[in-house]
Amino acid sequence: MTRVLNVECPDKLGLVHVITGILLSEGLNIVENQEFVDRGSQRFFMRTEVEGYVNEPRVVDRVRTAIGEGAIVNFAPLEPKRVVILVSKEHHCLGDLLIRNQFAELNSTVVAVVSNHESLRAFVESFKVPFHFVPAEGLSREGHEEALLKVLGSHEVDFLVLAKYMRILSPGFVKKFERRIVNIPHSFLPAFIGAKPYQQAYERGVKVIGATAHFVTDALDQGPIIVQQVIPVHHSHSAQDLAAAGRDVEQIVLARALKLVFEDRVFLSGNRTIIFD
Amino acid sequence: MTRVLNVECPDKLGLVHVITGILLSEGLNIVENQEFVDRGSQRFFMRTEVEGYVNEPRVVDRVRTAIGEGAIVNFAPLEPKRVVILVSKEHHCLGDLLIRNQFAELNSTVVAVVSNHESLRAFVESFKVPFHFVPAEGLSREGHEEALLKVLGSHEVDFLVLAKYMRILSPGFVKKFERRIVNIPHSFLPAFIGAKPYQQAYERGVKVIGATAHFVTDALDQGPIIVQQVIPVHHSHSAQDLAAAGRDVEQIVLARALKLVFEDRVFLSGNRTIIFD
Amino acid sequence: MTRVLNVECPDKLGLVHVITGILLSEGLNIVENQEFVDRGSQRFFMRTEVEGYVNEPRVVDRVRTAIGEGAIVNFAPLEPKRVVILVSKEHHCLGDLLIRNQFAELNSTVVAVVSNHESLRAFVESFKVPFHFVPAEGLSREGHEEALLKVLGSHEVDFLVLAKYMRILSPGFVKKFERRIVNIPHSFLPAFIGAKPYQQAYERGVKVIGATAHFVTDALDQGPIIVQQVIPVHHSHSAQDLAAAGRDVEQIVLARALKLVFEDRVFLSGNRTIIFD
Amino acid sequence: MTRVLNVECPDKLGLVHVITGILLSEGLNIVENQEFVDRGSQRFFMRTEVEGYVNEPRVVDRVRTAIGEGAIVNFAPLEPKRVVILVSKEHHCLGDLLIRNQFAELNSTVVAVVSNHESLRAFVESFKVPFHFVPAEGLSREGHEEALLKVLGSHEVDFLVLAKYMRILSPGFVKKFERRIVNIPHSFLPAFIGAKPYQQAYERGVKVIGATAHFVTDALDQGPIIVQQVIPVHHSHSAQDLAAAGRDVEQIVLARALKLVFEDRVFLSGNRTIIFD
Repeated sequence: MTRVLNVECPDKLGLVHVITGILLSEGLNIVENQEFVDRGSQRFFMRTEVEGYVNEPRVVDRVRTAIGEGAIVNFAPLEPKRVVILVSKEHHCLGDLLIRNQFAELNSTVVAVVSNHESLRAFVESFKVPFHFVPAEGLSREGHEEALLKVLGSHEVDFLVLAKYMRILSPGFVKKFERRIVNIPHSFLPAFIGAKPYQQAYERGVKVIGATAHFVTDALDQGPIIVQQVIPVHHSHSAQDLAAAGRDVEQIVLARALKLVFEDRVFLSGNRTIIFD
Repeated sequence: MTRVLNVECPDKLGLVHVITGILLSEGLNIVENQEFVDRGSQRFFMRTEVEGYVNEPRVVDRVRTAIGEGAIVNFAPLEPKRVVILVSKEHHCLGDLLIRNQFAELNSTVVAVVSNHESLRAFVESFKVPFHFVPAEGLSREGHEEALLKVLGSHEVDFLVLAKYMRILSPGFVKKFERRIVNIPHSFLPAFIGAKPYQQAYERGVKVIGATAHFVTDALDQGPIIVQQVIPVHHSHSAQDLAAAGRDVEQIVLARALKLVFEDRVFLSGNRTIIFD
Repeated sequence: MTRVLNVECPDKLGLVHVITGILLSEGLNIVENQEFVDRGSQRFFMRTEVEGYVNEPRVVDRVRTAIGEGAIVNFAPLEPKRVVILVSKEHHCLGDLLIRNQFAELNSTVVAVVSNHESLRAFVESFKVPFHFVPAEGLSREGHEEALLKVLGSHEVDFLVLAKYMRILSPGFVKKFERRIVNIPHSFLPAFIGAKPYQQAYERGVKVIGATAHFVTDALDQGPIIVQQVIPVHHSHSAQDLAAAGRDVEQIVLARALKLVFEDRVFLSGNRTIIFD
Repeated sequence: MTRVLNVECPDKLGLVHVITGILLSEGLNIVENQEFVDRGSQRFFMRTEVEGYVNEPRVVDRVRTAIGEGAIVNFAPLEPKRVVILVSKEHHCLGDLLIRNQFAELNSTVVAVVSNHESLRAFVESFKVPFHFVPAEGLSREGHEEALLKVLGSHEVDFLVLAKYMRILSPGFVKKFERRIVNIPHSFLPAFIGAKPYQQAYERGVKVIGATAHFVTDALDQGPIIVQQVIPVHHSHSAQDLAAAGRDVEQIVLARALKLVFEDRVFLSGNRTIIFD
């Protein structure tokens, strides 16, 4: 079995040498190694897959000490990520994730699905996954998020996945799950932001439909992009056809993004992702 | 040899029957036929490829009379389209088109290249294509366009191709070449409009780079889309790499769009294209 | 609501005129119409979407009589196609289809799933779809297919979908479901035929992984192709990674192919498909 | 300015540490670094981009000595690669490369074009690139290759590019340019090997057309793959249309492959390529 060491810090001379020296002295063989220095932010990123017995706390401590201030050092956990999926009424991304969850394809466990509607309860429960209805109607945003946090508090959660969750989360809420919320917005960013994106796309006569999975930050739908993809469409496709094409590409893009995130292959450098695939 | 009849008119009952009846009575066999009714505009579009001897004026006249008011009826000309390419300093789209022109791949003849810079003169002339330098510096937009029109007036021109022409054409100028200007804007519409699109894309951390070929209308870079395509990029690509990727996809997209346009496969329905490929 | 008329026959002069004349006299408006004459086989194909009240038997009869011998004329049924999915042990295509079935996305109803293994029973039954275990072990091919036919006989079946069914069907069996079996073979045709395609692909160092959905004919994995697609891979992907990529693209390709087939958009011309998308 | 160090050797413990230690002691900062251990061949590959003054012979010598037997160590040359393009009668890949050559886009210089036909002479010479006609007719393969080698001997050549060269090179010839011949075969490997691939593809009714750029080895068209890509086609495309689509994708794929090769981003591990893009 291999383990994955992830390191992130301000760039300086000799980092690879120092880190690999520690790994060598620990008797670990490097199977695959990728580093990247983001020239804009002058930050160093490294993902190293090693073979051999890993004394995790000792290695992490040695690397941290060697690098000094600002080092983020950790081994990717052996356990699957614990995930809560938030949805509204659309099932396509959710369904694909529940199947992949059932067959353990994404290095994660869906511990619960939360929705502001009741309509997908039976569907979710048929997969033996807990479903929580957290209504938003008649509540202030604060009120609703409070209820949401209470439900989330009843589970141990590593990541939130917004699988067509049609509500905007407040900055305060987002802060609580910094770098741990993945979204596939109901618009194919960065092209058509806002409501009715498929009607906009139809009227514009687009020839491709795309989807973007990204981390959620305060800036609505402007967080770091993880995966983007498009599929071709043509003039005889109605706005409904475009929406169906959009659902298909969203399903693919979200699954791909979560695979990368949950395998600890995605780093953040400011508003950009560094992905060691 | 086959001929292509194109018909466009307000939709009504029996159009296909009437038109094919005329073709039948003219002894013409339909090889391929595509119709489309655009539900938004309630317009009818038909492209019919026929075999047999075509009495062109008589067929067109009979179809026009049968359909009545508002009919646009014509046979695709047998002659290649006469094209002027407008460029600024970038050569990638231009070079690809000059090669395709030399080997007669696009059902067109490049009768001249016009630029607001001198830098591509030798390159263009090595293809034995006339090059006209029409400087813009120090001139008002009107003054420059006047000079442009004078040069264009010295050629018989069916289409203008803006192959990275970095100047905005006035509505008056565009009107003179309505539906006859194809552009591949220096931004990958509809995502990043404006200056320095690749720097914007880099900072946004996009995972695909796209290009859009479209007809030019008064609305800057918002005219009917002909072809759109993307190519994948990743975090280690600099803004310069993204620009290189962009040039490659622009070159492909523009050649593809011009092939469709010059083979009379593209109809316009409001701001949308109907493409019978 | 619109209805779809499909016509197929040997090509001759005036077919479109005759057929549209009948539709016109029946008071039907043509919304979308596509014809294609396959030059190799000299066969004519036409898909016409009409609005208005359709007297189905009368229209079909009139068109058939008008065309004469060899005409295949029918309206696409209003009812969803009745489908049996055959699987072995892999769940990825099956799972996607069961979700799409549950939300009625493919103009079809999965009436049963049949497998030569028991392992997917609980999964299938959680979708409230009947599961039949038809073991093959210890049986001759004839014996197994007899058992299969018995199970299929207990359902009304329009189409069989081989969603990673790892057994070869006999020509006799295939004949019983001519043009009604869709397969996504366990190899990315037409590249690597046979066993262990992903190991072959890995050793060959391929840069794309593809999938092909096709109709089943006597020629193993050589039937008419409906949809083909590829996804990029690279050197750091193991044979297992390639297999995972293959599963993802198979899932997409099969769903896309079934949508086209079940919406009566796919015609067969010899070993080629004509697809009016 | 940065320099690129490439290292290849049998895998063993501590390689990255040793190499980066030498770079550190030479005062070189690592800008980007990629390693990969090919599990099948147990070979180690590393591409390191460094900043700072490089004493090239000393660094290479230190790294070689440190690694020991079997080490292949070198800095990517600063000079563009010297390239001879071999063609037969098709111009599409050639034309694209000559344009990119003229604008110095591929880190290479085309020192000559060689053909077994005269037909492209004027085209090549219009780019001010020497053209050599080396006829094959009436000669044995040995005789022709002798003539070819004589012409090649008159230039200093780093790489041969077979840009639709329709002759098979002998193992002896290939050996003289081991790992230094790139081909884009006249068939879209690995699907349709042999003559008339587009007719084969048409009859098979394929839905994608692909192209493969690879290094040439003794095994005809089976050498290590560098780039593969496909483009979608459909039933109304004739074999000629498929061929045109094929030319477009070949042009793209070959340019992309040469960019990677000439920027020293491609390593060979047995019959697979390791590409640090």
